[in-house]
Amino acid sequence: MRWLSRRLDGLRGLLGMRVPAVPREPAVFRPIGVVRNSVREPRMDGWEQVRSDLIVRDDLLDALDGIETYSHIIVLFHIDRVPEGERTTGRIHPRGDPRLPEQGVLATRSQRRPNPIGLAVVPLLRRRKNILRVRGLDAINGTPVLDIKPYVPRYDSVPDAKVPDWTAR
Amino acid sequence: MRWLSRRLDGLRGLLGMRVPAVPREPAVFRPIGVVRNSVREPRMDGWEQVRSDLIVRDDLLDALDGIETYSHIIVLFHIDRVPEGERTTGRIHPRGDPRLPEQGVLATRSQRRPNPIGLAVVPLLRRRKNILRVRGLDAINGTPVLDIKPYVPRYDSVPDAKVPDWTAR
Repeated sequence: MRWLSRRLDGLRGLLGMRVPAVPREPAVFRPIGVVRNSVREPRMDGWEQVRSDLIVRDDLLDALDGIETYSHIIVLFHIDRVPEGERTTGRIHPRGDPRLPEQGVLATRSQRRPNPIGLAVVPLLRRRKNILRVRGLDAINGTPVLDIKPYVPRYDSVPDAKVPDWTAR
Repeated sequence: MRWLSRRLDGLRGLLGMRVPAVPREPAVFRPIGVVRNSVREPRMDGWEQVRSDLIVRDDLLDALDGIETYSHIIVLFHIDRVPEGERTTGRIHPRGDPRLPEQGVLATRSQRRPNPIGLAVVPLLRRRKNILRVRGLDAINGTPVLDIKPYVPRYDSVPDAKVPDWTAR
């Protein structure tokens, strides 16, 4: 069956059947908020204890109702301070460390990725109206926030997910 | 100290000091790939067993190197089939179920959110060149893929994160 599936995949590829093309149309998003914290310059680490306020647009105040009933949130943000020239479509040393084996940039959490979208799972310390205080967000002051989602372990937590050995170094 | 911090927050707000404005500039991303599966129309659930192929742009082949050493990946995608009129900046009944208490849309995982960015944590079943096969991705055929990240439990897994009681219904 696996052999058959492989053959069919190949056939579909040859005939161009049912293979959707990668869309060329750009995806455009308006920031829903901004990060406020004490970090002014990009850095690799040392984010664990940083406290940040997510200041959400006034017109989205109602959209936050109930977010405070979750202990953790997922923050998507626009890594807008990485110059286009620093991005890559190829391989990099993770964490910029030449002792670590090169990986494709999409196989890392590097900010130099093709689409500079950052993702962080952070504890929500408190909500005050349209301001959410979080800890450990790895985004500098002024970073545009694209989305905020409640963290739901049933969907988002895979404690025993496997990672390569070098990540433990 | 908490009282002082609150007062200072208030002062900063009044004086407009060090409060970055929410950026007005849109964030623009070019899809890095597309979802191929058998699901042709949006639906609420029944995604668990759906197998999907993520077809990544040819020029990003190297960027995937090493992704197959992770058991799970995070997929960010553009929910481009939700009409703008169905999006909301306010409250909704989660899962469209009127028996569930209304929540702000950002406090749910609804696709009707202000920026239609979908996020799914999925097992990576196999990689073949620029094609990643995954299970349980809640995106229909043709959905643009914006980013792929390796799932790292140390960053992404919070098994005991708290959620409100109604989510168990």
